[in-house]
Amino acid sequence: MAKKRIFSGMQPSGRFHMGNYQVLTNWIKLQEEYDCIFSIVDWHSLTSSYEDTSKLPERIETMALDWLSAGLDPEKNIIFVQSHVKEHAELHLLLSMMTPLSWLERVPTYKDKLQQLGEMGKEINTYGFLGYPELMTADIILYKANVVPVAEDQLPHLELSREIIRRFANLYKPVFPEPQPILSPLLPGIDGRKMSKSYGNEIPYAAEPDEISARVRLMVTDPQRVKKTDPGNPDICTVYTFHKIFSPEHNEITGHCRNASIGCVECKKRLAEKMIMTLADVHGRRREMAKNPEKIKELLAYGAERARKIAATTMEEVRSVMNLG
Amino acid sequence: MAKKRIFSGMQPSGRFHMGNYQVLTNWIKLQEEYDCIFSIVDWHSLTSSYEDTSKLPERIETMALDWLSAGLDPEKNIIFVQSHVKEHAELHLLLSMMTPLSWLERVPTYKDKLQQLGEMGKEINTYGFLGYPELMTADIILYKANVVPVAEDQLPHLELSREIIRRFANLYKPVFPEPQPILSPLLPGIDGRKMSKSYGNEIPYAAEPDEISARVRLMVTDPQRVKKTDPGNPDICTVYTFHKIFSPEHNEITGHCRNASIGCVECKKRLAEKMIMTLADVHGRRREMAKNPEKIKELLAYGAERARKIAATTMEEVRSVMNLG
Ligand code: SF4
Ligand code: SF4
Repeated sequence: MAKKRIFSGMQPSGRFHMGNYQVLTNWIKLQEEYDCIFSIVDWHSLTSSYEDTSKLPERIETMALDWLSAGLDPEKNIIFVQSHVKEHAELHLLLSMMTPLSWLERVPTYKDKLQQLGEMGKEINTYGFLGYPELMTADIILYKANVVPVAEDQLPHLELSREIIRRFANLYKPVFPEPQPILSPLLPGIDGRKMSKSYGNEIPYAAEPDEISARVRLMVTDPQRVKKTDPGNPDICTVYTFHKIFSPEHNEITGHCRNASIGCVECKKRLAEKMIMTLADVHGRRREMAKNPEKIKELLAYGAERARKIAATTMEEVRSVMNLG
Repeated sequence: MAKKRIFSGMQPSGRFHMGNYQVLTNWIKLQEEYDCIFSIVDWHSLTSSYEDTSKLPERIETMALDWLSAGLDPEKNIIFVQSHVKEHAELHLLLSMMTPLSWLERVPTYKDKLQQLGEMGKEINTYGFLGYPELMTADIILYKANVVPVAEDQLPHLELSREIIRRFANLYKPVFPEPQPILSPLLPGIDGRKMSKSYGNEIPYAAEPDEISARVRLMVTDPQRVKKTDPGNPDICTVYTFHKIFSPEHNEITGHCRNASIGCVECKKRLAEKMIMTLADVHGRRREMAKNPEKIKELLAYGAERARKIAATTMEEVRSVMNLG
């Protein structure tokens, strides 16, 4: 049986943080089991950053470096830049014709983000910003993705995509599968709350070993575990959430924690070691790769070519069922 | 000095009437003086007719036949189908990112047409319908048109295009000229009111000679001219409006009317003769051309190729000033 297909994208916002790295480690797991298409969605980044695009080329290169150095495989996966495949724009336009305005207006994140970015002084109330989930839908269905890894707050976007797909099928013919979500957990900050610069609870992706150790020591653990002899519950422990990303043997930790055969101090020490080691590897690879920006460009061109082939086939089918030339 | 460029389009709505023919005769005059690009805007027609596209291919061919048989020259002008040049979709998407939603919402025709089509039972309140003037802007500026022939009710659309162009220039660089309108007068119905099927005041484009004569006899003239010896005012006479389209020697008529050397009955007779002759020619050419649909397809492909070249050059410039790949 053919593998199921995944589509996912990330905006080249220029700030790669530990949360992005977590998403990447998740993708790296998925690349074994699925036929994966990962896109640096630069057109999407225009929805909130159209006013200054001067850093966009650098941010795209940076993101490609971050992806490849973390271990995303450009042969196993299709890795490309959205704007290199013009079919995204064509499908977005066609979908726009059949999508009721009210469907887009009622997306819960729409009004929230509008307000949030407005408070940051961004003039964001544009036609394109409203069309964000429409473009996301085009991205996904252009490759007939069956599965989309999403954070919980993006579930309404995916539900909207599924509605648009059903509407398309009713109006014309069923061309697209309805993609199913895979929930990606959000990496918390060291205090267990949502990771956010404004909370000061982040661990920078580029942090040096000392900083990593210091930040891990401050992490909150299972609050019920007061003495070292108390059994702990890793499921509610921030340290353990990080172990799941950085320690291949994290299942062992679970056992040790539950039967109190490891203390939190030791557990944190092990995490810090793993984080330092893993990130040193990644950053080392990244430095090497950065020496050869031409190679990065080539890999992205290769990915775009592969993406375009699939996109072109889908668009032929779309044009045919819509009676377009 | 290089000729100024004109862009204009028409939706393949499937109903070609005398008003469309008038627009065409206007284009045919313009083709001598300007570098003209004329597009069958099939994507636009989806804004109001996405629900049933089954007749679209036939309507596109029909429109091409109507244009060519009326005398629009596929060598002097670029004649093409919008959806054949994907750059329209790409530029539309990029413009969407920087266009405030409120600019589109306040276009006067938007709410009117929404209501009008809503009353006809069309579910038209879509994202794409709101974006109509955005796509029109992309159409015009993709070719850096300097001049756009518009009917009076479309002036706000063109003003919006000019605003978008200025915003683009402020955000990035000035790439597009601000197009100037040329007002195209609207052909009235035989009763002097707006030509409309619901008023029953049309002359069908495919009318037979007898029907043309009968309809012309019913046309309203200068109401002040009661007796044949009264001088008339052709400027307020519906018959004369039609003469301007069908009679090359219409200036003569003006003189005859003003010094009462022609009666209205005779004047109408001459108009009917001209209309019958002209339309017989056009319809004859149309029947000939319809025998060779392959030739029509070829001409449209040739036009698309020429349009694409200009569009591709513009998009390179757009991507470059927007820092896109
Ligand atoms: S042992 Fe580790 S997983 Fe268990 S509560 Fe302590 S820090 Fe958390
Ligand atoms: S003579 Fe002709 S132009 Fe003059 S009023 Fe009569 S119909 Fe009109």
